[in-house]
Amino acid sequence: MDVKPLLAHIELELQKQVSRLDAPRIKPFHEMLTYHMGWTGEGAGPEATGKRIRPLMVLLCTASCGGSWQHALPAAAAVELVHNFSLVHDDIQDNSDKRRGRPTAWVKYGMPIAINVGDALFVLSNLAVIDLKQNYPAEMIVRAAEILHNTCLDLTRGQFLDMSYEGRIDLTLEDYWPMISGKTAALLSACCHIGSLLGGADESKQDAYRSFGHYLGLAFQVQDDILGIWGDEAVTGKSAANDLIEGKKSLPVLAGLGANGSFAARWRQGPIQVGEVQELARLLASEGGYEAAADAAKQMTDLALMSLREADPQGEAGEALFELADKLLKRNQ
Amino acid sequence: MDVKPLLAHIELELQKQVSRLDAPRIKPFHEMLTYHMGWTGEGAGPEATGKRIRPLMVLLCTASCGGSWQHALPAAAAVELVHNFSLVHDDIQDNSDKRRGRPTAWVKYGMPIAINVGDALFVLSNLAVIDLKQNYPAEMIVRAAEILHNTCLDLTRGQFLDMSYEGRIDLTLEDYWPMISGKTAALLSACCHIGSLLGGADESKQDAYRSFGHYLGLAFQVQDDILGIWGDEAVTGKSAANDLIEGKKSLPVLAGLGANGSFAARWRQGPIQVGEVQELARLLASEGGYEAAADAAKQMTDLALMSLREADPQGEAGEALFELADKLLKRNQ
Repeated sequence: MDVKPLLAHIELELQKQVSRLDAPRIKPFHEMLTYHMGWTGEGAGPEATGKRIRPLMVLLCTASCGGSWQHALPAAAAVELVHNFSLVHDDIQDNSDKRRGRPTAWVKYGMPIAINVGDALFVLSNLAVIDLKQNYPAEMIVRAAEILHNTCLDLTRGQFLDMSYEGRIDLTLEDYWPMISGKTAALLSACCHIGSLLGGADESKQDAYRSFGHYLGLAFQVQDDILGIWGDEAVTGKSAANDLIEGKKSLPVLAGLGANGSFAARWRQGPIQVGEVQELARLLASEGGYEAAADAAKQMTDLALMSLREADPQGEAGEALFELADKLLKRNQ
Repeated sequence: MDVKPLLAHIELELQKQVSRLDAPRIKPFHEMLTYHMGWTGEGAGPEATGKRIRPLMVLLCTASCGGSWQHALPAAAAVELVHNFSLVHDDIQDNSDKRRGRPTAWVKYGMPIAINVGDALFVLSNLAVIDLKQNYPAEMIVRAAEILHNTCLDLTRGQFLDMSYEGRIDLTLEDYWPMISGKTAALLSACCHIGSLLGGADESKQDAYRSFGHYLGLAFQVQDDILGIWGDEAVTGKSAANDLIEGKKSLPVLAGLGANGSFAARWRQGPIQVGEVQELARLLASEGGYEAAADAAKQMTDLALMSLREADPQGEAGEALFELADKLLKRNQ
């Protein structure tokens, strides 16, 4: 299945949703949102929009359950708007100055207004869900909204854990999964759950789709953690071992801390410097950090694919879903 | 009607909604929310919770349309959670260090986590609306959610206008109403609208209730503006003319700027100092700032009461609604 038409419609739906703020007196506010979404301003274009994987998952899940992906477009926009709301606030919280190669919203507009940009994206996601009323019964909209809101609560939980881990040196692998379940897996899980719901799947099929998204999210994150330490700089486009310098509580690092060897001893002494990252990445690998992450990635990938087979997605959309999962799980960037 | 039982139930419902975050690993996060809500931590108690006027309005509107206020409790919690979400983010944006006499969330927990506290309150408000499904048909929940989400979009619009006015010296009265409609009137309007919807009112009655909330909000804000410049310090509990020092774009100030006299000339020269506020407050009054605000307050009050009479609220709840409006519109603090 060619997903290009789906991606084009996702972009149009997103623009339609965001255009609720395209009104007199607040044009500059609307422009801030279109800048963040990657449509306007310096560096606008496909590189700046991101891959729109989450909305694509919604549509493919709907279609592979036999539903109309066109009808599910507002839900696709909703999850992408939630994702972008969290990115805008994350960037403030993490003090990040670049996002997809461009200045972040808070760098460009100041922190106070960037908080408001994030809030507006969140509100727009809520309104997008309501737009489903054109094509679905009210009960289904309430259920979709409930799934999405619970997911958003998971996001705030994961974000809290992430921030609360800062500066802590007593963390182990047990602290990893609750954080990452909220920060990464919850939204992908919601995409598949809502997509299958709108596709007309029964509860047990919805569960399978939801599990697929959940494990896909976990596998994706663990892989991201591996690439962040041992990735090929030339391929990932960012300096490898960057995550070590930033002190990111990634799975390999938490495994290394749990092993309590030389890596853990060095980590606990304070921030890692640029000059020592290569040696520390090697040390972490020799103390089981790489293996733990690779094992976890494989486990989560297996669980994701098992869930997807159980979901038994149909037709071209089903094939596209397997292809997308395969691409996400085998990426090297 | 004695509103005390309603207020007690509102508090219980709010605690129930916020307890969604009372879970292992995130207890400290839950505590941050209960602190902001006024239930825990230093200075906890009735003074710290605020007056819960918005949820009370929801319940009184529902009951005065003949509905069960008990059934509407989740909606009451939802509007109060929206209000508190906006307060937490406002305090960061305005750099305010005190809220209801206590340190603000960002002062206590740091800006990054306070953003997350606000986000969580927002998510909880969304989930509270879904809880209405116990007692209302799905169509009504979708409608209530739509009203609330549109109101939240108004809040972000108003907040943007407020921030974008900063440092501008070309503002006039025309710039006042769009800002204040979003920042203050939208949520009170939504309270009355949703309350009457859940009470079973037809569309034209809902419109009357909605208008009542809208004009009540505008009247309330204009009155607040007057008290912020010419209020009795001993009664309001904050130093009068404080709004002048803070450079707040209140109605009297915008009227004064529009008059383009000595007050406007001084305003445009830069921040007002403590020593000159009394003289400037007198100057502003002599150049029509007080009269413009008093006239507007009277107009909005008349429109609010006219709308309420049109809504024709019934029974004890209806009487309580007139009393509450009267109290809000005749307050001196």
